[in-house]
Amino acid sequence: MLTLRHLAIDTVRESVAFLNRRCTGYHVEDFLGLGRVELRSGGRSLLAVLNIVDDDAIVRLDEIGLSGPAFRQLALAEGSPVHLVPPTPPESFELVRAKVGGAALTENELAAIIRDVTGQRYSKIEIAAFLIACASFMTTAEVLGLTRAMIAAGSRLSWDGPGPVTDKHCIGGIPGNRTSMIVVPIVAAHGLPIPKTSSRAITSPAGTADTMEVLANVDVPVERMQALVREAKGCLVWGGHVRLSPADDILISVERPLAIDTREQLVASILSKKVAAGSTHLLIDIPVGPSAKIRTAGEAVRLRKLFEHVGDRLDLTLEVAITDGSQPVGRGIGPVLEARDVMAVLRSDPAAPADLKDRALLLAGRILEFDSAVRGGAGIRRAREILESGAALAAMERIMAMQGPPPAVARLGSLAAEIAAPADGTVAALDCYRLARIARLAGAPNDKGAGIDLLRKVGDPVRRGEPLYRIHAGTNADFTFAQGLAAEDNGVRVM
Amino acid sequence: MLTLRHLAIDTVRESVAFLNRRCTGYHVEDFLGLGRVELRSGGRSLLAVLNIVDDDAIVRLDEIGLSGPAFRQLALAEGSPVHLVPPTPPESFELVRAKVGGAALTENELAAIIRDVTGQRYSKIEIAAFLIACASFMTTAEVLGLTRAMIAAGSRLSWDGPGPVTDKHCIGGIPGNRTSMIVVPIVAAHGLPIPKTSSRAITSPAGTADTMEVLANVDVPVERMQALVREAKGCLVWGGHVRLSPADDILISVERPLAIDTREQLVASILSKKVAAGSTHLLIDIPVGPSAKIRTAGEAVRLRKLFEHVGDRLDLTLEVAITDGSQPVGRGIGPVLEARDVMAVLRSDPAAPADLKDRALLLAGRILEFDSAVRGGAGIRRAREILESGAALAAMERIMAMQGPPPAVARLGSLAAEIAAPADGTVAALDCYRLARIARLAGAPNDKGAGIDLLRKVGDPVRRGEPLYRIHAGTNADFTFAQGLAAEDNGVRVM
Repeated sequence: MLTLRHLAIDTVRESVAFLNRRCTGYHVEDFLGLGRVELRSGGRSLLAVLNIVDDDAIVRLDEIGLSGPAFRQLALAEGSPVHLVPPTPPESFELVRAKVGGAALTENELAAIIRDVTGQRYSKIEIAAFLIACASFMTTAEVLGLTRAMIAAGSRLSWDGPGPVTDKHCIGGIPGNRTSMIVVPIVAAHGLPIPKTSSRAITSPAGTADTMEVLANVDVPVERMQALVREAKGCLVWGGHVRLSPADDILISVERPLAIDTREQLVASILSKKVAAGSTHLLIDIPVGPSAKIRTAGEAVRLRKLFEHVGDRLDLTLEVAITDGSQPVGRGIGPVLEARDVMAVLRSDPAAPADLKDRALLLAGRILEFDSAVRGGAGIRRAREILESGAALAAMERIMAMQGPPPAVARLGSLAAEIAAPADGTVAALDCYRLARIARLAGAPNDKGAGIDLLRKVGDPVRRGEPLYRIHAGTNADFTFAQGLAAEDNGVRVM
Repeated sequence: MLTLRHLAIDTVRESVAFLNRRCTGYHVEDFLGLGRVELRSGGRSLLAVLNIVDDDAIVRLDEIGLSGPAFRQLALAEGSPVHLVPPTPPESFELVRAKVGGAALTENELAAIIRDVTGQRYSKIEIAAFLIACASFMTTAEVLGLTRAMIAAGSRLSWDGPGPVTDKHCIGGIPGNRTSMIVVPIVAAHGLPIPKTSSRAITSPAGTADTMEVLANVDVPVERMQALVREAKGCLVWGGHVRLSPADDILISVERPLAIDTREQLVASILSKKVAAGSTHLLIDIPVGPSAKIRTAGEAVRLRKLFEHVGDRLDLTLEVAITDGSQPVGRGIGPVLEARDVMAVLRSDPAAPADLKDRALLLAGRILEFDSAVRGGAGIRRAREILESGAALAAMERIMAMQGPPPAVARLGSLAAEIAAPADGTVAALDCYRLARIARLAGAPNDKGAGIDLLRKVGDPVRRGEPLYRIHAGTNADFTFAQGLAAEDNGVRVM
């Protein structure tokens, strides 16, 4: 028997056990070949990947250490006696093996896999095997089955009233595309509920949660969200508190490092989260452009059809907007700069970026038409009315007030450098991916004031030496790093 | 800049970096989403999976800890200054993504992947992605390309003289199948070089290296192997000292926990090791049976053809023997018991298991026919002559003497229990997989004296209450465990 010890090591969504190489009563070699070990203690058991420790200060001979997530999963006190047995891989992995061999899985089979993934019984390599098997082929029925399985494996929100609960989601990839922060107040001002949860940026320079956090607190528990939506009709909060589709979070933690993005996994991921969030009417925004996630109109249509097919069978009222993803939206890239653009639009500031405003009106208009009282085709006019009357600004201010003040005051980075045009000409292209990387190296989103302020957009004339954009940063290291990357390739094509 | 620290944690063939959550100068969130971090220091760089530490005693705020393999890979002194940059995944992973999408890879492309795998630039999830993509389809040209790439990524042995260097390899799965320990002395006594390296058991109750270690030292460095083969023509050593096809070892460390065995990966794995070991003439043994790795004659033929196809193009003289894999070979399962059977055959003991002897003669005969002086069809007669004259025993004794005495004296486990027949009848089937598991739970191979001694084989009559086999163990815990598994299902069908 070994004694359980909690190790302050976060192995990031994988259960890992740490065993001393000379541990009492076991041969580590018995477990090493299979890479895992099964812990048993008083009726509870846990499968964990095995790491071997040669330092008695980290794990003693009579101890077994568990990483943070594994310790919580086993849910026993430190010091509990634990014994080890050879690992029995989760039964559902047999189904993954069948899928690798070319089988299509049923909804029940996918549910068995997703239950084991959610219960942390899959190691990361097993999750990778499942994702790759799905990436090589997946039937439409499997996408639907996977979506349903992911919804069933988490909790589900419900909202008051019989009417539609609306939501919007952009598949991402376009810097500065902060339409949600304009759409939500417009829709809420109209009176349709729109409880919007957003993510923080992981690989991009800002997520909606990061940008909203410049203006208000976004760290809002679920109960408070319910009150917000009851009173203000909308909210703009971070989704991290809501355990919606936890399987999706686990799958993404493996999908992202592999950078394997498939249409099928994208649809299952988004729709599982939205159904679990209690949405009934959903608008999906698919930007298309040469440096966007979706590069051709044909790809966009295939993706749209898959969203429609699965959405219909989940009883979602789902609309898809295919939008221009050829360049960043608005002028700012990075939380403070993007929040500035959003507020300029809401305030009807004449200098507000027209592309951000037009796109937000288009999307808001489509959502307003979910309201049966709005005449077909009249949504965008109604959206414009709400925005230009100041009603959207008032709704945004109410939402901000209810969510509370931001945790810290964020200011624009004081270090600034202009990137100049190399020649006279016209801006022919802005590379979304490149500009996002530069903004990220400048410090965004952790440094909220860091980022890029675009001074020219596609089609604008420019003379040699005139600034194309300004890099903002808060620290010298970030500043130098970002300027270095821009010097290699500034992401703007002037022709 | 962080300071490099060597952590005494063995993360088992994966580079892992340990960073304090509040570390100086970096936001861990910048790296978490991609799961990895890239370390740079004085022109050297290393990609590592990221773990987060919340205990300053394990990693201080200004330190970065590296696990054993990663520390050796980076090859810098403790205390070296290191800075972190966002990870750039290995370029060759783009090719894996193409393969997932359905592309067949060229030999050069496979070589690029294998170089990065060998250089520890792939994380385990990336390796899993590669293996699963290969498991869903692989052309014969890809199998050949992968085999060549694996050979090129490691070192290669060469042997004296222009004549054939022979070898045999069994694809495994049959307990007690220790023919190598009889074939090697027969072939060596005949005068053909046969430098046999074997593995230790990882999931089975004994590997040839474990069983040979009951009789002699098997931990022999490469230079000593050369001398052995020069003087005794053969050896039976553990392959762990020879860095042959290191990519294969890394791939297997992910393949095995996933239990994804494909024909293609098996062929690439075995042939890359054998060519790297300098073999020119190779006999492959494929046992077929209901509880073996290969279950039908059709499967065996497909596997044979793939071995032949790839072997021919590697200039190997390759023969395949398809053998009976319906039940364990010999009587003993576990190192001491198997060594007993082997020595009984070599000593021409009348009680020696006939099936082990016959099979060893069959295989040795096929290898002897690689010698152009041996008349076609006469190999098995020549093998029998060498065995029955005592020349094989003398060759084995010479090999044992040259390899040196075993590291410890191993004796049969003193705890013993007989498993009785439940009814009168005839033994209809022995389940290889089940018996191997029971022997393993009894303590084999770490406890060399543990295992199973079969008292009845398929076709033997038995009366109710008579013993089918005996379990041997060295400790009470193992003894109870093995008996418990046997009580559930003893692996013997009496009809």
